[in-house]
Amino acid sequence: MTLRVTVWGENVHEKKHPLVAEIYPKGMHQCIADALNTDPELRATCATLDMPEHGLTEKVLAETDVLTWWGHTAHGKVDDAIVDRVQKRVLQGMGLIVLHSGHHSKIFKRLMGHNCDLVWREAGEKERLWVVNPAHAIVQGLPAWIDIEHEEMYGEPFGIPNPDEVVFLSWFAGGEAFRSGVTYRRGGGKIFYFRPGHETYPTYHQKEIQQVLRNAVKWARPEGHAPWGAPERPVAKAIEPITEYGGSVH
Amino acid sequence: MTLRVTVWGENVHEKKHPLVAEIYPKGMHQCIADALNTDPELRATCATLDMPEHGLTEKVLAETDVLTWWGHTAHGKVDDAIVDRVQKRVLQGMGLIVLHSGHHSKIFKRLMGHNCDLVWREAGEKERLWVVNPAHAIVQGLPAWIDIEHEEMYGEPFGIPNPDEVVFLSWFAGGEAFRSGVTYRRGGGKIFYFRPGHETYPTYHQKEIQQVLRNAVKWARPEGHAPWGAPERPVAKAIEPITEYGGSVH
Amino acid sequence: MTLRVTVWGENVHEKKHPLVAEIYPKGMHQCIADALNTDPELRATCATLDMPEHGLTEKVLAETDVLTWWGHTAHGKVDDAIVDRVQKRVLQGMGLIVLHSGHHSKIFKRLMGHNCDLVWREAGEKERLWVVNPAHAIVQGLPAWIDIEHEEMYGEPFGIPNPDEVVFLSWFAGGEAFRSGVTYRRGGGKIFYFRPGHETYPTYHQKEIQQVLRNAVKWARPEGHAPWGAPERPVAKAIEPITEYGGSVH
Amino acid sequence: MTLRVTVWGENVHEKKHPLVAEIYPKGMHQCIADALNTDPELRATCATLDMPEHGLTEKVLAETDVLTWWGHTAHGKVDDAIVDRVQKRVLQGMGLIVLHSGHHSKIFKRLMGHNCDLVWREAGEKERLWVVNPAHAIVQGLPAWIDIEHEEMYGEPFGIPNPDEVVFLSWFAGGEAFRSGVTYRRGGGKIFYFRPGHETYPTYHQKEIQQVLRNAVKWARPEGHAPWGAPERPVAKAIEPITEYGGSVH
Repeated sequence: MTLRVTVWGENVHEKKHPLVAEIYPKGMHQCIADALNTDPELRATCATLDMPEHGLTEKVLAETDVLTWWGHTAHGKVDDAIVDRVQKRVLQGMGLIVLHSGHHSKIFKRLMGHNCDLVWREAGEKERLWVVNPAHAIVQGLPAWIDIEHEEMYGEPFGIPNPDEVVFLSWFAGGEAFRSGVTYRRGGGKIFYFRPGHETYPTYHQKEIQQVLRNAVKWARPEGHAPWGAPERPVAKAIEPITEYGGSVH
Repeated sequence: MTLRVTVWGENVHEKKHPLVAEIYPKGMHQCIADALNTDPELRATCATLDMPEHGLTEKVLAETDVLTWWGHTAHGKVDDAIVDRVQKRVLQGMGLIVLHSGHHSKIFKRLMGHNCDLVWREAGEKERLWVVNPAHAIVQGLPAWIDIEHEEMYGEPFGIPNPDEVVFLSWFAGGEAFRSGVTYRRGGGKIFYFRPGHETYPTYHQKEIQQVLRNAVKWARPEGHAPWGAPERPVAKAIEPITEYGGSVH
Repeated sequence: MTLRVTVWGENVHEKKHPLVAEIYPKGMHQCIADALNTDPELRATCATLDMPEHGLTEKVLAETDVLTWWGHTAHGKVDDAIVDRVQKRVLQGMGLIVLHSGHHSKIFKRLMGHNCDLVWREAGEKERLWVVNPAHAIVQGLPAWIDIEHEEMYGEPFGIPNPDEVVFLSWFAGGEAFRSGVTYRRGGGKIFYFRPGHETYPTYHQKEIQQVLRNAVKWARPEGHAPWGAPERPVAKAIEPITEYGGSVH
Repeated sequence: MTLRVTVWGENVHEKKHPLVAEIYPKGMHQCIADALNTDPELRATCATLDMPEHGLTEKVLAETDVLTWWGHTAHGKVDDAIVDRVQKRVLQGMGLIVLHSGHHSKIFKRLMGHNCDLVWREAGEKERLWVVNPAHAIVQGLPAWIDIEHEEMYGEPFGIPNPDEVVFLSWFAGGEAFRSGVTYRRGGGKIFYFRPGHETYPTYHQKEIQQVLRNAVKWARPEGHAPWGAPERPVAKAIEPITEYGGSVH
């Protein structure tokens, strides 16, 4: 069954910075979508900040199995009502892949309940991603490690809840280490944060990184058809007989 | 060393409903604070919704080691700026004990990243709390189970992230089971959600429940003096030499 | 792709106790295998204690995607070498479903690192299983709860590590609550413990229970083709140049 | 209240390898115990492999709040009955700090239910330990990172269950990253694995490492006076009336 993926891109750097436009002439989002669409099981389409409702209408989200999110310079411009909507869909079961500087997006901070702060350095240094669990779905088809020749550095402490799983650790030439691939579950939704992807480097053109993205999207597919529970609601009648009861002020 | 506890109470039912006022003449918060203050290691004071800044000024929070939170009918009246402030202090290390209908408070939903929905029934039925881990700090001095003669029922599914630990399970006479005591860690802050405590029953007068509250507050004490990391910030210089580097558009 | 399931049964009660033989004339294991085989994606075969190597030869395990385990009265008769073999396959990625009194099997205690103790009562009372996360793969197609008219009771404390996920909670007529469906990951292997299934009741004939078994087996399928890492081994050469080094006594 | 620590050392390298004996003339265990005993809240004594019952008699363990474990070359010589005994005490509430090559000790593998495999390289390279959560009890008083000039490298994949918390990450000069400080809870016992400490380097003389050890021992102190539950046992009588019941073959 085809998995419907919506690739969300902020689409700001691509328009303002010639270097970024040169690396990603169709936008970072389109590069990611193209990488996903090489897999016949996946059907990825794009949505961007500048579209009405940021391209994330009720209809689009209802027909999205997994959403990927890249943002950086315009987190504050994302409408809170859209963040509410995305959170609701994640709790219902939609998968969410948060990329690189999306660590500080409203939706990631919302779902983590955390500040998601970290330290960074932009020096184009080498990053090496180590596979922590070689049997995990997200690392299938990868070697024991992935080298990215030039990347921005992200360092600990990373202000996130203890992850369900740490899938990748990064080693940086400048001397730092980082939890670069971490998973969470929130309601029905599976969430994967993946660190690499600074806009001034061709990271999303790298074939191993594209493999991670395809794997992650498949890993995050909804497990069930049932939505997350009912809304908060009362249960009028007990299943078992209750012989005594107290008063109520509701 | 004395632990400084702030007991936050919504203080609305107590003023509107004669039955609640009769059970808790000084307010539910004062009943909880009194129970904590029987322990010489604890010094509990109260703060309520109707106070300026809901009684949770920067100064009060800076001098609070553990905050307890009971709210129900007025969650929406809690100022978002105060919620931000409490979240920040929890990430820094302040403990947080969320009680009963506080499951739907802004601060709990914020820290969980979840809707925290559940089902409920107010029929004054019997609740039995089972201790899941008898070696946990929160259950010290308790029997294998606690019976509460009359309580509101909360039922699964409870819309929370998978807890770090399940400390109590509830059995209800009407036929439900529930994860009634669960722990989380967010940054430096330890969080405990404890289910019992509907306003129309004398639950917080019960001695085993008071023991849980004292234990929980001690368990949640800050572990360290260090705040949670630095804010999101750049690292200008690498520790190790970086021999090659790329450009930057920052 | 067909999922290869091996259903392991102790097959002792069925031969000794007329009541059990009456309920499960082909053995409990065959009843479970038949329930799995109603799904065309699954191909289940049986293995029992009395077979050579308990039916779990290297070849059988190498060709097993998911193993289910029911044992009770003869845990001590399971050869330690077979337990080693099963553990190794789980770490490599084979799924494992542990049923009912299998909580005290050698393989479950081995993988948990725990005593897995609990309390029990055999009074044929009603058990009600509550779904904790309605979006989980294991509960698809189920109602909000499952009633089993007559079952043995298992009560807390259950001596297990904090689970990754609690999927079911049980309510018992006699007054207990229990974590009846819990998941773990060990290496590549996904593990699900599922409480119901006492030999003197027709639990595995119940259609909702059969649905849980089919769902669980599919949930536990291996995620990857890669085995769990390499064995413990040295790395002769560093990827990066190491300019200084100390001595060695190896 | 004084915390009673037993420092277990294999005490084999110290006697066979002149370099190790030169670095640790009183044994690695005594160096660790001395570091702990600089804190008036701690009272550390040593036990070694060559003592009767490896120095871990029932009496010694009953009077131990936290046990630290360093072993390497003689894991196989540790008596299984002693491993059983230590595991039982951990489940009851005794803390356990596993050091460096203790990752492959019987007791660690037992409690993890895992093979605990990893890759290693002994090249005396630089290790840098990054603090992942600056508010954690185990890192109090430490800087943002610790440099160890010469250490053995341990690399991922590390064959352990997903930790409750990752407290330290290591960066190695040769190009690897590793989860160097991880916590678990098993029953009442808190467990901390800490990577550094190869016998041919003076790691346990380093003051930041000694601070970690003191912090870890305090963090791992038993939370309660209650032992872990009762043993597996039947409950003869139900709390609530059971109106119908089935037969029994027990």
